[in-house]
Amino acid sequence: MAAIKHTGSPVCVGIDPVFEKLPASLRRWDARRRDRAEALLSFGRGVLEAVTEAVPVVKIQSACFERYGFEGVEAYQRLIHDARSMGLIVIADAKRGDVELSAEHYAAGCLLDYGPDLLGPDALTINAYFGDDGLAPFTQAAQQNNKGIFALVRTSNPGGSTVQGPALESGGSVAEGVGRMVQRLGEMAPLIGPESGLSLLGAVVGATHPKDAAKLRELMPEQIFLVPGFGAQGGRDEGILACFNELKQGAIITASRSVIYAFESTEAVAWQTPVRDEAQRLRDHVGALLGR
Amino acid sequence: MAAIKHTGSPVCVGIDPVFEKLPASLRRWDARRRDRAEALLSFGRGVLEAVTEAVPVVKIQSACFERYGFEGVEAYQRLIHDARSMGLIVIADAKRGDVELSAEHYAAGCLLDYGPDLLGPDALTINAYFGDDGLAPFTQAAQQNNKGIFALVRTSNPGGSTVQGPALESGGSVAEGVGRMVQRLGEMAPLIGPESGLSLLGAVVGATHPKDAAKLRELMPEQIFLVPGFGAQGGRDEGILACFNELKQGAIITASRSVIYAFESTEAVAWQTPVRDEAQRLRDHVGALLGR
Repeated sequence: MAAIKHTGSPVCVGIDPVFEKLPASLRRWDARRRDRAEALLSFGRGVLEAVTEAVPVVKIQSACFERYGFEGVEAYQRLIHDARSMGLIVIADAKRGDVELSAEHYAAGCLLDYGPDLLGPDALTINAYFGDDGLAPFTQAAQQNNKGIFALVRTSNPGGSTVQGPALESGGSVAEGVGRMVQRLGEMAPLIGPESGLSLLGAVVGATHPKDAAKLRELMPEQIFLVPGFGAQGGRDEGILACFNELKQGAIITASRSVIYAFESTEAVAWQTPVRDEAQRLRDHVGALLGR
Repeated sequence: MAAIKHTGSPVCVGIDPVFEKLPASLRRWDARRRDRAEALLSFGRGVLEAVTEAVPVVKIQSACFERYGFEGVEAYQRLIHDARSMGLIVIADAKRGDVELSAEHYAAGCLLDYGPDLLGPDALTINAYFGDDGLAPFTQAAQQNNKGIFALVRTSNPGGSTVQGPALESGGSVAEGVGRMVQRLGEMAPLIGPESGLSLLGAVVGATHPKDAAKLRELMPEQIFLVPGFGAQGGRDEGILACFNELKQGAIITASRSVIYAFESTEAVAWQTPVRDEAQRLRDHVGALLGR
């Protein structure tokens, strides 16, 4: 909340880099696995520098780094540490989930700090398909370590409806059923600040389904919505506004490819300049939507 | 199928190690993150040696290794390589899942070989909550690289019912809805062998819900069921038998803690001996159930 107040806009830049799309200056044609992982780290650091003034939050996509093996995972964890060290709020987008004991291991490995030499993220995305006892170890770890969790409720991809869309006999969609579970589990954990009215257990709700988002907002008044799908994935203003509460709070709007690859459509010599400009545009756009 | 025929029993040992539970000879009281990751790798290699004669398949739990940071991930990937090199069929139990592009990255990073210096697993567990277009990149990667996928349908934990249990308006439970999607997507990929009748897209179905397993078996005749929950998690013979098809094929029964920690309840000097004995007991038990 403080970080959002500071920059004035609840936006997040998603760092989802792919080696082939990096600026030419960071790519070597003969790059091996370790070189590629290092190039991703260099690029990620450059993105952090470019966006840190404009946005309060970054989301770092584990899949892109895991693609390059354990060397990629090292780059991912070092980038998370660097982003934390710069004072950014960092969401690890790893979508982990498992049964109880394994969920504890994921919480320890993907959310917590390793120690002063390697800070963990502030929050982690998780997959809630395992149900309440698969989710609980994550919220417990978050509560004990002053961190946060975002459980997948409604994803931004077109095919998400296959599983999340069908109606339940008891009313509402499968996604709404998951939303109700998240709301219920969130109530058992403390709020993130005495006056925020918001829970440490948040929800991922795509910007691509405005009507679903409005219903989910009603079902989950205390959840912070992490909202992917703006920009490249086709989410529009209507879908974004539906994710905020009556105070125009409680949502973080994320754009990834439209920001980090902004240099592709320019002739700029310094690739970070268009990335910074696009991050500012994202901040100003969402800020204006909210009347700030 | 060939590996199962060779050892005579469709069983799998799950390698889910935790540093604190390793044999004392592998633990140092002052172990740091890297030391712990190396201890897990040593233990995992010892388990592979102990079980390789008795079982055709091992499942390696990513969460346990991720707990120890990128050093843990290196140990995990080296253990997968070693198990493959020994001729075991290896399932990477990483439960990955994301929207399309990120799912492609996970498929590349968690399923495919990195090259001759680091073989990837034979199969990967994934989370199907993202729906059909989140699942497709995994099956495509599997098809192109002669590998397999196991999508979570019905998990073995008690709380799994919260999300997977509710009835759909269109009939059946949420898990059955996911099962139907898996069956449909499996039909689009080739069978794993011309006469096997089995798809490269399998399903995770816990041994702890026998009635659900029987229904899911009917809905998914071509899916291989990866069946966790036997042993420590309380799954019994009834739950196991329900997972096989009419030919008593098409399921892989997994036990983890009951095998890898078998040394805890003995005075044996060599910790690998009780692990080997327990793996043989698992093989013989399931073989006898199937009348082999």
